[in-house]
Amino acid sequence: MPAYLRRACITGGAGFIGSNLVDRLSAEGVEVTIVDDFRTGRREFLAHALARPNVRLLEGDVLDENLLERALEGCDWVFHLQANADVRGGLEHPRRDLEQNTIATANLLEAMRARGVSRIVFSSSGSVYGEPEVFPTPEDAPFPVQTSLYAASKLAGEGLIEAYAAGYGFTGVICRLVSILGERYTHGHVFDFYRALKRDPTRLRVLGDGRQEKSYLHIQDCIAAILTAVERHAGEPGAHIYNLATDETVIVDRSVEIITGHLGLEPAIEHTGGRRGWSGDSPLIRLDTRRIRALGWRPQATIEQAVVSTVRWLEHNQYAWHSAAAEVEALG
Amino acid sequence: MPAYLRRACITGGAGFIGSNLVDRLSAEGVEVTIVDDFRTGRREFLAHALARPNVRLLEGDVLDENLLERALEGCDWVFHLQANADVRGGLEHPRRDLEQNTIATANLLEAMRARGVSRIVFSSSGSVYGEPEVFPTPEDAPFPVQTSLYAASKLAGEGLIEAYAAGYGFTGVICRLVSILGERYTHGHVFDFYRALKRDPTRLRVLGDGRQEKSYLHIQDCIAAILTAVERHAGEPGAHIYNLATDETVIVDRSVEIITGHLGLEPAIEHTGGRRGWSGDSPLIRLDTRRIRALGWRPQATIEQAVVSTVRWLEHNQYAWHSAAAEVEALG
Repeated sequence: MPAYLRRACITGGAGFIGSNLVDRLSAEGVEVTIVDDFRTGRREFLAHALARPNVRLLEGDVLDENLLERALEGCDWVFHLQANADVRGGLEHPRRDLEQNTIATANLLEAMRARGVSRIVFSSSGSVYGEPEVFPTPEDAPFPVQTSLYAASKLAGEGLIEAYAAGYGFTGVICRLVSILGERYTHGHVFDFYRALKRDPTRLRVLGDGRQEKSYLHIQDCIAAILTAVERHAGEPGAHIYNLATDETVIVDRSVEIITGHLGLEPAIEHTGGRRGWSGDSPLIRLDTRRIRALGWRPQATIEQAVVSTVRWLEHNQYAWHSAAAEVEALG
Repeated sequence: MPAYLRRACITGGAGFIGSNLVDRLSAEGVEVTIVDDFRTGRREFLAHALARPNVRLLEGDVLDENLLERALEGCDWVFHLQANADVRGGLEHPRRDLEQNTIATANLLEAMRARGVSRIVFSSSGSVYGEPEVFPTPEDAPFPVQTSLYAASKLAGEGLIEAYAAGYGFTGVICRLVSILGERYTHGHVFDFYRALKRDPTRLRVLGDGRQEKSYLHIQDCIAAILTAVERHAGEPGAHIYNLATDETVIVDRSVEIITGHLGLEPAIEHTGGRRGWSGDSPLIRLDTRRIRALGWRPQATIEQAVVSTVRWLEHNQYAWHSAAAEVEALG
């Protein structure tokens, strides 16, 4: 149990990144409080962790002030991972990003201030760079123009944390993430392709022209990077901003090849066309990771390994995509 | 009456910038709808305008959806000037910036979308650059770190407008303003100094070391710049971002000299010390204005002329600072 991290609050602790972080921290002896409303989080993801005496679950969301107050009691760090992660749904539900990402973050910061908790990790997104002109894109790239409501809401969360750092002496570790892959991944390209192939292994519809260049990071590498930054900045108030990514990229069509190759399928591929998979999609994401690498962190998994481990996990955990598929249909 | 601007909705239309814009547009024959809740707006500022048949007032704020729907009816452009402008009060009232700047802007954008109105001018702030390392600071300066809740809330508003431009085809003119001076100015350095000297002409307390370098712009130059950008982009969906400032700067101590010189006073000056006037204050603001100048706009007033015109207006309109002073005391 590291001295700078005896008690952690993890919002979205039943989600993909959150539950993996819960497992990691609780295994190291950290007292972990999970806040999750199970809107997208999964009880199955916490099955092992909740058997540990140093893990407790508070069911509800960050907009519930009483719950938050209890959750923050005595915490050294808050890992604020709860978010609306439905990047593509922004245009249909513009309030959702505002409420679940921006306002929820504002409420959390106020509750932290009231309880004297001042260290926060925030899961932001590489999408805050909009359509950058500099590749790989560094943290101090030219002032971006936002291209999606999701990214705008994440940028707003970053700004709030930075202002709390400047005004109230908070320590903020802001992680601009690319898409994360690996165990418990239930959202995004690889998930969608996998599920579609399970329904119909003979054909696969790919949004855009398939040439969109994406960067992925394996969940364990992501968590290692977050904890590297937390260790480094535990005693250092201010806003500390890091891109978290591999230095590789992969085009969407190559992801499809890896998936179909692993599954032994040869579907007919249909591209919907256009540079973007959806309005606000970035045709190219490649982040400069020198800043986090300067702290000694290195990713262990290649993108190909990350994709394969994801598909393997989906194969062995059918509950994750069976029920999620039903849920998406119910929403749609 | 220009063809691209027959009907305008001006939020914060009873405020400093808003009421001057109302006067200008209504004089040109534009149908103007003012939305203002008179929290900081002043009825006196609308006395002339409301006598015109082409000006109507809807009393209330942008968080009132019914009011907004009526206000937006048939509008070509929305000038969204309503805001919490109390930059220094952010740390005491962190919700205020979020609600009045970010959430209000989100609500307005949704109401516009519902009514088919898609052109918006947004009064943002040069403070979104935080503490820049590049001077003069261009619109595409390195990705800034926010230093105040006010600036964070303005940045969030910018991001929302950019996302609406990308996702819904909105036209957004985002103006990053320095402090504006001139007729109906009732907020900021010059106002505070003037009021303090009226109370006690023998001494003046100056926050910080007096060396903070500020850029000011005269209200008429500000309005001319906004309308230049509106004319240019009326038929051009997307986010169009402009710094609005003079190329000059003035240090706070020089502002004080201009004011005391104009008033014929020689107060003892007391500096509170430190590079910043308050937490989140920028010790140096100098914006690169090449982008707006490329549209043909030039400021007409020097900073000295702007300061003198402000003091002269305060001299002739005692109601503005008598009652405002009482209000500040009531709040304090």
